[in-house]
Formats: sequence, structure tokens, C-alpha cells
Amino acid sequence: MKTIRYGLAATAAVALTLASAQVSAAMQTETVEYQVNGKTFTGYMAYDDDIDGKRPGVLVVHEWWGHNEFAREQAEKLALEGYTAFALDMYGSGKLAKHPEDAKSFMQEATKDMDQVKARFMAAKNLLQQHVSVDPSRIAAQGYCFGGAVVLNMARLGVDLDAVVSYHGALGSPISAEAGKVEPRIHVYTGGADKMVPSEQVAGLVKEMQDAEVDLTLVSFPGVLHSFTNPGADQIAEEFGMPVAYDQNAASRSWEGTLELYSEVFGN
Amino acid sequence: MKTIRYGLAATAAVALTLASAQVSAAMQTETVEYQVNGKTFTGYMAYDDDIDGKRPGVLVVHEWWGHNEFAREQAEKLALEGYTAFALDMYGSGKLAKHPEDAKSFMQEATKDMDQVKARFMAAKNLLQQHVSVDPSRIAAQGYCFGGAVVLNMARLGVDLDAVVSYHGALGSPISAEAGKVEPRIHVYTGGADKMVPSEQVAGLVKEMQDAEVDLTLVSFPGVLHSFTNPGADQIAEEFGMPVAYDQNAASRSWEGTLELYSEVFGN
Repeated sequence: MKTIRYGLAATAAVALTLASAQVSAAMQTETVEYQVNGKTFTGYMAYDDDIDGKRPGVLVVHEWWGHNEFAREQAEKLALEGYTAFALDMYGSGKLAKHPEDAKSFMQEATKDMDQVKARFMAAKNLLQQHVSVDPSRIAAQGYCFGGAVVLNMARLGVDLDAVVSYHGALGSPISAEAGKVEPRIHVYTGGADKMVPSEQVAGLVKEMQDAEVDLTLVSFPGVLHSFTNPGADQIAEEFGMPVAYDQNAASRSWEGTLELYSEVFGN
Repeated sequence: MKTIRYGLAATAAVALTLASAQVSAAMQTETVEYQVNGKTFTGYMAYDDDIDGKRPGVLVVHEWWGHNEFAREQAEKLALEGYTAFALDMYGSGKLAKHPEDAKSFMQEATKDMDQVKARFMAAKNLLQQHVSVDPSRIAAQGYCFGGAVVLNMARLGVDLDAVVSYHGALGSPISAEAGKVEPRIHVYTGGADKMVPSEQVAGLVKEMQDAEVDLTLVSFPGVLHSFTNPGADQIAEEFGMPVAYDQNAASRSWEGTLELYSEVFGN
């Protein structure tokens, strides 16, 4: 256990408690507690200790359930690919829903104020940028479901990011991208049969992003439902009768497409 | 000079005159005359003679100008990647426009009847499938501008293809894709500032293809105009005051994306 203070922006005065664990020979992981506007959040940093020098950083934004094991696993997968990844926390420490009703309520509380969403995202981004292994000028963000909406909204708000990836994310938003304001290249992976992300919403996103001069790649997987990246989706479907399902092909293709995007924008 | 008879479907009883030319040590090219419903067409076959065995075939559908040098060059590039490519002819031998007014008139004549479009496309597809170097079960089609509309319409009509790629193609159509009828994976590369392909049309295509359960990848390049794949576009822009322009980055990314698609669907 060690405590590190990061010199962060005023919106996120942060004291970190780091618990390092050895997941593989090279991979280092740290559970990170940090504060935003007086509230405590718990994220998870993963990187490969065998890699010399600073590397690009990737933010991982969780599903509507909250900061869970799935989000941490994505960070670890990114670490194995040579990135430093930070699975952030948008809800606050311990806020992990077990029932869709709780998830919905957490999500509504977290998103009622876009300034609050941005403050929480920026705090995590600053943390990642100041990590010893990270080149702060090369940062991407990827999100799932609710997290997909978060990263797209950060792109819409003009946050300085090199790449943004949304997996089965909500695509509609109270805010719209403005021409010339959106910096990152954007990849959107969506299930063609995702009832939470209907085709009207996908079409609307495409028009919005085209009109805003965004570098957009959209991939629609036919017959694929919401949550296709998450192997735990099938259990959720059974337990709560929700129209979600894991899809190995869509999960694999969206992952490979993401790695290609990062390789292109980061030149590594 | 040699004459070969292909046993083709009734719509395309064909006598071929082949003129072989050596473009590189390995590449073979053949100018192919063929007939569809009593009218003569001139296409261009390209393949690598050093490759043993049958390989996938790719149809190349020209811009609204007609079967031109640019289309032939795409066939040669595909041949260098290990495919047998056939740059077909949708207008008829010698119909190569020098002025946009002629191009428009040729295009209108060729597309006034969707059955005619399909007959011309299928004749070329049959020719390609019966080429000695081609595995007839593995066929893709790619088209530019007018040709992009042609290949998308063939997908909409349920033509048996493994992959379809549209580059700065018109995306609207008098016919619509039907759920479960569209076989190929589809890549659409479009310029974000293409005045011939406005964002409403792009959004409409996405909705249509999602609703029809199509495996769709859409890439929109910000600030990019119509004809971005064609180095000759800048001269056209100057000569006729048209809003077209070559874009090296978009040309390169759409080409790489196409090769990846073919590699994935053909497993080579």
C-alpha cells in the first residue's frame, strides 16, 4: 500500500491510495482512489512494467452497472497491448449496481448534469496523463453502453483526445457535435438488433458527426444485441429478461478495430 | 490475339477477344470484349500469373465517366494483391465521356432500367467467375462514384457476393435492401464534405442497412470531397469547376480497409 499525491487541476484535488498487484509477470495493476468535488471514486490502472518509456494512455468507461470487473478486464487487455489503461469510475466508490433499476438510477444521477460528467471524466484523464508510464499527449477513451455515451459526449464537448471508441453505446445526446470542435477519430461499434440503440439513433449520429466534420467509422453487426462485448451479458439476459447477449464475433472484430485505430493514431 | 468462348448464362452469350499484355513480370492483363443482350462491352482482366491455383475474384465498377484507365489501374492494383480483378464496362464499348454532360447522359441511359444494370453486372460477374484463375465461389465487387451505386444496388438485389465496397458512391436508390436478403459485408467510404453525397443520404443508407440486417462498415473522412480515390480528380475540378478532389489519406485508408475486408471474408 502506498499513497501518492498527484498535482491535479482544481476540479479534482486527489489523494491516491494505490494497491499494486502482480497479474502477470509484466503487468502492474493499481486500485486508485481519487476525489472529484469532495466525492470519492475508485478506478483501476493497468500497465506493462516491462515496457520502457512513456506510452499512450487509454481511459475505459464502464457500463451503466458501474465500475466493475469487466471494465478492469478491458484495462488489463489494453495493458497487454502496450498501453497504460485506466478504468475510471463515473458513479463513486462502491456504487456498483446488481439490479437494472439501480443501474438506471446511478446512471441518471451521474448524467443529470453534463458539467459533472465532464468533471469526473477530466479528473480521471488527468490522473492517467500524470501516471509515470504515460505520454500525456497521447490519450484515447473507450466506453461501453453508458460509457459509450460518456466518451462520445466528451468528444462532442471538444475534450482533447486522439481517439474515442463506443461499444453498444447510446448515441443520442442532449448536446451536439460542432463543426471543427471534435478532435478525436471516432469508432462506433453497434449491434444491428440492439433495441437500446435503434437505427434512427445510429442514423442520427452519422448525420451529426458528418455535419460536424468528424472522422467517423461506424460498424453495424447484423442481428447483434446490446452488450455484445460482455461475456456476462447472457446471464443478465436470463436473470432480468433483458434483450442483451454476448457475441464473440462482434466482440472480437470491435476489439481488433480498436487496436488498429490506436495503432494508427498513436503510430505505434 | 486469341479467341475464347465462355459458356455463359443466356443473358450474356459471349465471344471473347483477348489481348494479353505483360504489365509486370507476373501480372497478366487481358482486354475482354463481351456481349450482353446484343450490345458489345469492353472490360479488362488483371491477375498474377505467378500465383498457383484459383483465387478470389473482384469486380471493379467504373465512375460515371465510363470504363477508363483509372478503373483498369484499380484492377491491376488488386492483381498485385493476389486477386483476379475484372474492370467491367457498364456503358458499352467506346462509351467514355470527356465532359460531365456526356457522363451524366451515359449514366442515365445505363441506369434507367435496373434489370439492365443487373444484366450487365451479372454478365461481367459470370465472365470473372469462369476465368481460369478464379475460384467462382469467392467474389467481391467494388465501385467508384456511379460504380459505388451499382455495387450497392447489386447487394440490395440479393446478388451472391461476399463483399461490396463503395467509394464516394451515390447511396440513395430507387430500391431498398430487404432484411435477410443482402449477402455481402459492405464497406462504404464517403467524403464528409462530398456535395454529391450529403449527410442525409449517408444517414439514410445507415438506417436502411441496419434495418435490413446488413454487416455494414461506414467510414466518413472529414473535409473530403467527391472522387477522393482518383488522382485525376483535381484536373476535373479545374477543367469543369466541379467540387471534386483527390485525397491521399482517404484514398490510402479506403484501400487498406478494402484489403482487410477481402482478407477477412476470403480468409487469405
